[in-house]
Amino acid sequence: MNIYTNPPQQDWAKIIARPAMDTSQMQAIISPILDNVKNNGDKALVDYASKFDNVIIDSLSVSITEIDEAEQLLSSGLKTAIQQAYNNIYKFHSSQLQPAEKIETMPGVVCWRKSVGINKVGIYIPGGTAPLFSTVLMLAIPADIAGCEQIILCTPPQANGKVHPAVLYAASISGVHTIIKAGGAQAIAALAFGTESVPKVYKIFGPGNQYVTAAKQMVQQFGTAIDMPAGPSEVCVLADESSNPTYIAADLLSQAEHGNDSQVLLVATSQEIISNVQLQLTEQLATLPRAAFAGNALSNSNAIVLSNLEQAIALVNEYAPEHLILATENAEELSTKIVNAGSIFLGHYTPESVGDYASGTNHTLPTNGYARAYSGVSVDSFVKKITVQQLTHQGLQNIAHTVIAMAEAEGLQAHANAVKVRL
Amino acid sequence: MNIYTNPPQQDWAKIIARPAMDTSQMQAIISPILDNVKNNGDKALVDYASKFDNVIIDSLSVSITEIDEAEQLLSSGLKTAIQQAYNNIYKFHSSQLQPAEKIETMPGVVCWRKSVGINKVGIYIPGGTAPLFSTVLMLAIPADIAGCEQIILCTPPQANGKVHPAVLYAASISGVHTIIKAGGAQAIAALAFGTESVPKVYKIFGPGNQYVTAAKQMVQQFGTAIDMPAGPSEVCVLADESSNPTYIAADLLSQAEHGNDSQVLLVATSQEIISNVQLQLTEQLATLPRAAFAGNALSNSNAIVLSNLEQAIALVNEYAPEHLILATENAEELSTKIVNAGSIFLGHYTPESVGDYASGTNHTLPTNGYARAYSGVSVDSFVKKITVQQLTHQGLQNIAHTVIAMAEAEGLQAHANAVKVRL
Repeated sequence: MNIYTNPPQQDWAKIIARPAMDTSQMQAIISPILDNVKNNGDKALVDYASKFDNVIIDSLSVSITEIDEAEQLLSSGLKTAIQQAYNNIYKFHSSQLQPAEKIETMPGVVCWRKSVGINKVGIYIPGGTAPLFSTVLMLAIPADIAGCEQIILCTPPQANGKVHPAVLYAASISGVHTIIKAGGAQAIAALAFGTESVPKVYKIFGPGNQYVTAAKQMVQQFGTAIDMPAGPSEVCVLADESSNPTYIAADLLSQAEHGNDSQVLLVATSQEIISNVQLQLTEQLATLPRAAFAGNALSNSNAIVLSNLEQAIALVNEYAPEHLILATENAEELSTKIVNAGSIFLGHYTPESVGDYASGTNHTLPTNGYARAYSGVSVDSFVKKITVQQLTHQGLQNIAHTVIAMAEAEGLQAHANAVKVRL
Repeated sequence: MNIYTNPPQQDWAKIIARPAMDTSQMQAIISPILDNVKNNGDKALVDYASKFDNVIIDSLSVSITEIDEAEQLLSSGLKTAIQQAYNNIYKFHSSQLQPAEKIETMPGVVCWRKSVGINKVGIYIPGGTAPLFSTVLMLAIPADIAGCEQIILCTPPQANGKVHPAVLYAASISGVHTIIKAGGAQAIAALAFGTESVPKVYKIFGPGNQYVTAAKQMVQQFGTAIDMPAGPSEVCVLADESSNPTYIAADLLSQAEHGNDSQVLLVATSQEIISNVQLQLTEQLATLPRAAFAGNALSNSNAIVLSNLEQAIALVNEYAPEHLILATENAEELSTKIVNAGSIFLGHYTPESVGDYASGTNHTLPTNGYARAYSGVSVDSFVKKITVQQLTHQGLQNIAHTVIAMAEAEGLQAHANAVKVRL
């Protein structure tokens, strides 16, 4: 880690800057894939599975039999764990539903908002080294709670032509309606345009590599919404004298093991805290199966000493981390001063990994400083709130003067007329 | 209007398709403007005001004196109307704030969401033929309720170098902190990158011409969020035998007067309704100051006869209108079947123009079919919801098995370790 001690505030922006992503070449690579799927549908998906995943696919849709098989293949311990995570995520997310509340803004003028699940949504689950069945729960459960009528999941087939059983199991208990063996930019294209097997959806969710991310950005221009812009995952730990260096090192490593580009930032109120964490990092890193990733990520990471918590909070708010661990005393009180973060973990017994899997909060969160303007995924992400208004004849009379005066002042006579003809 | 009688369902998509917008040339036009403002700040804004608005600007910021003057220039009738609209919009939007609710998902595991206003937001208000002071209310009021700390409004100067007094008055009562005389793509660039006079913001709201719209799309790649993608304004009226053709014609014209590209769709349960509306359209159109716009928009519009309300609702949901007027009996009951719309107006005494100005709902709504996935602007648009979780030591023990089992099954040992070291 690079260590900075009491850097002046004007240098913070440079120290905490994320590496710029060069996406200039992506459009040329992705465009032909989008076109091919748009024009050739399922055939293009089967061809790409052969080309990119080295698998011959008979049927793009996962059958009921495969889902039943998957349940047999999982240990009962893992199924119990997935079920417990499901329960916690379901409980927290179902509290996010908002009932319509009618507001009479003036006599005879009643307004409300009704929440409606986005009819068709797509969920992308990457393949690769780790089967991200936790992300299935994080996206399908709020979609199901929101009342989305069609939840379509795309994920690349493994070398044996099947989908990882934990992904299938999580999908089957979370309300996913259709599971498609397709990965990469071609899966995003299928969800955006529709194919014979894949229904066209209105919004696409989920993580992915640079091709998936670029494809999600690009299909927006064809009218498909996406969850949020994406970047490498991040954690920021804010530590004071009460913190435990063993815990902090473990938290930093749990982020660093994601990949070489993972972002890790330690902010501490003394040099000693950082020195102790570094000793622990060396010790714990040696035991990790993904030590190569974690080591690379750490070597690009920063630790910053600031002389007091006020300054530390200011720096955290400027950085706007995806995950923020407040490894401090009075963490809840301190959290009220945090204005830019995706998800906050309070105190010494709340590691990020509880939120990654099972505390109940969502792990699809804004990276790359997007927490300044974006929220993480929630039930809100899967609903539209449609406003409704109803006026009585008396209500229209009560509001008529206001609407007519404003419409005429904006030079919009027909707007005024629409009230006048009804009086 | 083009009239279709009982078109088969497979033809609907073609009939209700919006005209495609060709934005391919825009990037080349807008890029140099973004670069110039990024590199030259205020000087670029002053130069563009001279070039595009034909005005020499002394100071980009509107002074307190100009705001005080504006209040003197408005009639008391208009000020009363703006104040009434303010009250209704404020009342409805303040009901959208969500207090944090702590959920104990399992013993010792507590999760909640806290809403925080986006620190810095930008509002764009177009100049042009109509001074859109109503849009100032619609964007600044929810920003103020959300607790945004800096609300920056950009709007092009008029020929006299000033901002329209109604825009200034609405801004001054709605909580806007800074008003900048800058329009077009250059204003969007100033909000996205910041200049000497214009604070860099995290999210930009507001309507605009094709240059503004393209600039908003483009600054997203630099990390600035925007309210939603934009297209021409639309209304769909669904009329049954109880409807009044005079009212419907007035509603269609109030949309059509916006501009040549306004979208107007009439869906009716009989041919007779449409014929009666057409007679009224001819009569009312003749009296309108903006008859040229309205006539052009109408000539590109469609009226569709469908034999029953069920079919009509299905078509409306497929079209996903920005504004939907249910000019029917039992409109509220019918509205429960609407799943894709921006804002719904119920019954015979709720013209769209009440929502455009003063009912209390927001008039910044998803056009172009985006209502399938997007909501209109609300207080939600100006806040981030940050999740927070706190575990006791016992809570961590309760959830430990679940997190460890899932992390290990995903091959993420360091995630499991972060729990294990704390047990």
